[in-house]
Amino acid sequence: MGRRILWINPVMSDAYDEVIGASLRAEARLDTRLDVASLHGEGPVHLEYNAYELTAARPTLETVLWAEQEGYDATVIGCFYDPFVRAAKELTTRMPVTAPAEASIRLAQSVGERFSILVGRDKWIPEMEENVHRYGAERSLASFRVLGMGVNDFQVDPQYTESRIRAEAESAVATDRADVVILGCTIEFGFYRRLQAEIGVPIIDATVAPLLWAELLADAAVHQSWVHSSRLGYGTPEPAELAFVLQPVKPQLSGDPR
Amino acid sequence: MGRRILWINPVMSDAYDEVIGASLRAEARLDTRLDVASLHGEGPVHLEYNAYELTAARPTLETVLWAEQEGYDATVIGCFYDPFVRAAKELTTRMPVTAPAEASIRLAQSVGERFSILVGRDKWIPEMEENVHRYGAERSLASFRVLGMGVNDFQVDPQYTESRIRAEAESAVATDRADVVILGCTIEFGFYRRLQAEIGVPIIDATVAPLLWAELLADAAVHQSWVHSSRLGYGTPEPAELAFVLQPVKPQLSGDPR
Amino acid sequence: MGRRILWINPVMSDAYDEVIGASLRAEARLDTRLDVASLHGEGPVHLEYNAYELTAARPTLETVLWAEQEGYDATVIGCFYDPFVRAAKELTTRMPVTAPAEASIRLAQSVGERFSILVGRDKWIPEMEENVHRYGAERSLASFRVLGMGVNDFQVDPQYTESRIRAEAESAVATDRADVVILGCTIEFGFYRRLQAEIGVPIIDATVAPLLWAELLADAAVHQSWVHSSRLGYGTPEPAELAFVLQPVKPQLSGDPR
Amino acid sequence: MGRRILWINPVMSDAYDEVIGASLRAEARLDTRLDVASLHGEGPVHLEYNAYELTAARPTLETVLWAEQEGYDATVIGCFYDPFVRAAKELTTRMPVTAPAEASIRLAQSVGERFSILVGRDKWIPEMEENVHRYGAERSLASFRVLGMGVNDFQVDPQYTESRIRAEAESAVATDRADVVILGCTIEFGFYRRLQAEIGVPIIDATVAPLLWAELLADAAVHQSWVHSSRLGYGTPEPAELAFVLQPVKPQLSGDPR
Amino acid sequence: MGRRILWINPVMSDAYDEVIGASLRAEARLDTRLDVASLHGEGPVHLEYNAYELTAARPTLETVLWAEQEGYDATVIGCFYDPFVRAAKELTTRMPVTAPAEASIRLAQSVGERFSILVGRDKWIPEMEENVHRYGAERSLASFRVLGMGVNDFQVDPQYTESRIRAEAESAVATDRADVVILGCTIEFGFYRRLQAEIGVPIIDATVAPLLWAELLADAAVHQSWVHSSRLGYGTPEPAELAFVLQPVKPQLSGDPR
Amino acid sequence: MGRRILWINPVMSDAYDEVIGASLRAEARLDTRLDVASLHGEGPVHLEYNAYELTAARPTLETVLWAEQEGYDATVIGCFYDPFVRAAKELTTRMPVTAPAEASIRLAQSVGERFSILVGRDKWIPEMEENVHRYGAERSLASFRVLGMGVNDFQVDPQYTESRIRAEAESAVATDRADVVILGCTIEFGFYRRLQAEIGVPIIDATVAPLLWAELLADAAVHQSWVHSSRLGYGTPEPAELAFVLQPVKPQLSGDPR
Repeated sequence: MGRRILWINPVMSDAYDEVIGASLRAEARLDTRLDVASLHGEGPVHLEYNAYELTAARPTLETVLWAEQEGYDATVIGCFYDPFVRAAKELTTRMPVTAPAEASIRLAQSVGERFSILVGRDKWIPEMEENVHRYGAERSLASFRVLGMGVNDFQVDPQYTESRIRAEAESAVATDRADVVILGCTIEFGFYRRLQAEIGVPIIDATVAPLLWAELLADAAVHQSWVHSSRLGYGTPEPAELAFVLQPVKPQLSGDPR
Repeated sequence: MGRRILWINPVMSDAYDEVIGASLRAEARLDTRLDVASLHGEGPVHLEYNAYELTAARPTLETVLWAEQEGYDATVIGCFYDPFVRAAKELTTRMPVTAPAEASIRLAQSVGERFSILVGRDKWIPEMEENVHRYGAERSLASFRVLGMGVNDFQVDPQYTESRIRAEAESAVATDRADVVILGCTIEFGFYRRLQAEIGVPIIDATVAPLLWAELLADAAVHQSWVHSSRLGYGTPEPAELAFVLQPVKPQLSGDPR
Repeated sequence: MGRRILWINPVMSDAYDEVIGASLRAEARLDTRLDVASLHGEGPVHLEYNAYELTAARPTLETVLWAEQEGYDATVIGCFYDPFVRAAKELTTRMPVTAPAEASIRLAQSVGERFSILVGRDKWIPEMEENVHRYGAERSLASFRVLGMGVNDFQVDPQYTESRIRAEAESAVATDRADVVILGCTIEFGFYRRLQAEIGVPIIDATVAPLLWAELLADAAVHQSWVHSSRLGYGTPEPAELAFVLQPVKPQLSGDPR
Repeated sequence: MGRRILWINPVMSDAYDEVIGASLRAEARLDTRLDVASLHGEGPVHLEYNAYELTAARPTLETVLWAEQEGYDATVIGCFYDPFVRAAKELTTRMPVTAPAEASIRLAQSVGERFSILVGRDKWIPEMEENVHRYGAERSLASFRVLGMGVNDFQVDPQYTESRIRAEAESAVATDRADVVILGCTIEFGFYRRLQAEIGVPIIDATVAPLLWAELLADAAVHQSWVHSSRLGYGTPEPAELAFVLQPVKPQLSGDPR
Repeated sequence: MGRRILWINPVMSDAYDEVIGASLRAEARLDTRLDVASLHGEGPVHLEYNAYELTAARPTLETVLWAEQEGYDATVIGCFYDPFVRAAKELTTRMPVTAPAEASIRLAQSVGERFSILVGRDKWIPEMEENVHRYGAERSLASFRVLGMGVNDFQVDPQYTESRIRAEAESAVATDRADVVILGCTIEFGFYRRLQAEIGVPIIDATVAPLLWAELLADAAVHQSWVHSSRLGYGTPEPAELAFVLQPVKPQLSGDPR
Repeated sequence: MGRRILWINPVMSDAYDEVIGASLRAEARLDTRLDVASLHGEGPVHLEYNAYELTAARPTLETVLWAEQEGYDATVIGCFYDPFVRAAKELTTRMPVTAPAEASIRLAQSVGERFSILVGRDKWIPEMEENVHRYGAERSLASFRVLGMGVNDFQVDPQYTESRIRAEAESAVATDRADVVILGCTIEFGFYRRLQAEIGVPIIDATVAPLLWAELLADAAVHQSWVHSSRLGYGTPEPAELAFVLQPVKPQLSGDPR
């Protein structure tokens, strides 16, 4: 009854594959097998720019095609911009696809009434705010708060990162009247447990939330046959036509050692 | 690693306790133990009127207090009006609480882009529409459609009910451009599987969706310590003061035979 | 041509019945007869928690049924959370029902363009903000401001309360650009006159506004036959079925001495 | 304790002054004295075009200035486009000003949950829909329905008008799920009583609703000193400067014979 | 292939006609001929009050009628409140009409994601905020910021005005996270170039933006026959009826010397 | 004073390059030089699927980089989904970028009050509706209407296409109360002139509108220095880092023969 989940780091670098894999396996259900992929080819090692993000589109979608073919039960496209989810749902008919913002926001809305999102830079906010609107969560948004760090800074000096997250999370609670905090980048992983114990509100980790949501969706697809609808926006191309445009490609893979 | 979940039928009748229990156990995880409760005392056997719903408030909250004390890992207040959820979260500090509309809408938003809700009567729509707004899902709402049946009609002649659901679900897809359908009453249970196979879009059952969500929340509370925040709207009364107002009361219980 | 209005303090304490009655009679029309009721039975003496509020639901609705039977021309359910209004409208066919937030917000929208609501505690805000949204007044809301006091503190040291209201009202005007202030709790009565003279913007008292609105609704029901519609959300239960669930009960009553 | 109210028909024709005056006096409180004015000068006899409406601006505002000087306790600018209300509030400091749409919508929101507005022509809808948005009532709007008549047609053949209103009101209830109907033109007066008895939902007359609201505002200004705020959008010009731009002018007047 | 554009200063003063004309001709296309008009008659020399604005309605509309008759290709009603645009579109069938806020907001939305509007006084904000909503730009609005100056102060001491604009524009960028700034009054002309070079974000001048938009609309009317639709809100009165209400009147004119 | 504009057909086919070029040159200003590009490489020949669209991201952005380097004054990314606009703005500092939906909607909002969008298939609606929301135009949207044709069907049998557009445009006006119609696909070019003459409302062509808007933006960038802000969402990557991810690539080009 277990499930196989693929976490895609949609960048051309496997720098975080092992560590995110290890971190998430400690949070997953016992019968979940979690593999982590990063993209083949050359390209960006972070997606802070929308232009970089878009260069990751094709290899991510090729990976999604491969994942469904390979028999995975769900896939997470692991960037808080939630990139390519509509396209990935078009390409798949059996395997659910989710992403960090969607799952983090849904969980935050269940455990609180107003959330703040801690982002690395101002630059990220407009695109993320559009997602907050797309998910209908604008009335739950207390604030964005800026850590003043880039994606690849978060794991360099964890103590500093933690102190910055602590400061902004505390301000979010005290000043913006947030009762939940979302860590708005997957590379902010590893901090939530200690900080939520200290600060006293749920702090939603952007890797753990989509893992839990992916586990739920994976089971719902198998047991309830609830998988994304093909009737409207997720309609699927004709296989012959699709084959001309996109084909499954195996990514760089960091497999579950269990 | 299992979890114990309490499903509350917030009415003064145990008419559906056994059958909903059996139906949900077939959908639950193997290591979930699901008990079903209905309310002690005399009162309404359906909640189609807001006034009836409110008479169920006190015994439901007494049941919630009992459930947390008793060690349940999550509770579902099983009515599609999602009654008393804020109050139940105030009263509990460890045990998550959820309800059908919240869970059904979140799932529908993940497997589709526009949902229709099939309700029994026009009368139900304004209160349910307020919940759609509260959950920020108004832009995902394709339509409400009315079956022309009361809560206690749905299980009387299942063939007729099924034909009515089929007709309205098909119109929702064809006319209102819905790509998902939500069965907007818990007593519409037992129909979703066959109909979604026929109609070809996900049909969200309002008992199964909150069960899955409750399983996720139960685990997230234990493993990630993500439980509703006490900092703002879910702040908890002083025990001494609370004891004067509300006390745990054991409900009518239909236990999991497993 | 006069009218009889019932003000319900929906708590199990008559502590404020006499004083609110006296205060409101000084504001009412000469031909209005105002009685004040509080709830029979044992239970909460304030409704700061949603759970407490819900325990007041049944006795409040029993009081509403009694009031219509008794011939009252309108009823105010006197708590700024506006509790139970939909249910009360279901139960009545001739007698209008209103509540403080609805009336205060409507008046504030007529005498200004942006209002701030002064609440006792942060805790109250999410539920009240939902009402602001329900009434479509979110674009008129300048801010919530927190006095840092509980319901039962307001009348203990009126000088202190007045100084707190003054400070927050002035900040609302200066900082949040409010041009009207609403006192967001019925127990903040007795302060509005002096403060609005000092501060120079209308300060809406949450007992006086619903009184005026109730007087209007009472007359409109009698003279224009404008009373809440029974066609949709306020549809009325069958008397026989209703009798099984709820019956009129006379509350504690503090009658108009005039 | 009575009050003097001025109803302004903001057109250059007194054709409806007597009949609206008589009709409204039958609906007013006994101690209300209602005068009706129409505009001095030459100009439009209906305001179906926004351009016509604007030519009525200056004489309407001159009338409002005169009315405050003359001691009226409230004024209604009697057109369902609610013209010139912000300007009129700027010009007055003691006398409340209201208008048909504001009052009708507030009443409709209190006696129902979804209203339809019956207008004469399609042409009127965009400007009226902007007012529905300005008042935050867009979520309560079930529909606009078009009678296919001009302002000056309504009183020509009352039987025909009544049959058209009946047909559209019934469709609004049956098809658009309205539970209240607003007659979206002041010249649709005289029909609401019989039709609401027949159709069974409240039908809000656009002359009576603002009369009731004006009576309430008049009293609230005198007794509670609640009059429009001068702190923000309704700030008042310096008298000397104003005198250069606008001066009080007595309108054509049809006085209350009582 | 050139075009003739009429800029209307909708006030009874030609104080700014020459200087705005000169300033705009330096920004216009070479083949644009720009005339500037102010209103005939006596009346307000600024429109800070809505009541003043409305007294300018009739002469502005008379000017618009004259302009279409005279063969202008587009007209700008040059006040940031965007007054009388619907009425002007009713009165014209061939000649486009636009106004500063519409054009400035559309440009700001294209060159940025969040704009701040610098206004003279608090008083102006509510009416302007309604326009921001009417144009659907509320999610792009970072803030209003107040310069603390009246319309006729801006050109008195340009150095002081510039320093105030600089200070508020910098705060808008730094504090409110604006990436574009709109100068929310046409009389704030002459400052944008130097300030945007200093501050590093686009600063939209409220005279230049509508000029560019008017040039585009003028050409689109001639070449694509895209002119405001007469089917709904801009429907045109019957000429005979209109002639009774409004007639073309030549304004004070400051013609293009080229 | 002329300007060079690049129209990008973001597909791997030059099938429409010549004909769109010719069609647009007939609509452009005399001093506009318009080149048309399609993408190098192999891939989709239409973007009806979001997955196809994303495979066009990298070559489109490479083309945008090339265009700025090459000295173009503005670029249109010619697909009604408005793909990659944020990314393209990140990559450019001098050259404006726009797209069909943005420009068509802005023009439609200026020439009408409610627009309908005629799309080829249901499938397109959810992504396009998100853009309508992103542009704040949801209150102006009368309806989407479906032609039942794919992108590459529109130019096959122009008579049939015209009859389908006519039918749906007429229904949009008559039934949905639209006063403007937008042709929601660039390959619906060539039909607007005749149809708007017949139907009597402006019909916005999705190639002409962005051409006009690009001409305006091109001039505003040169003359007013108004180009997209780099302060927030359009911040530009460091050149060295960017060079590693994306580089200018010359597309297939169909140059302006003038």
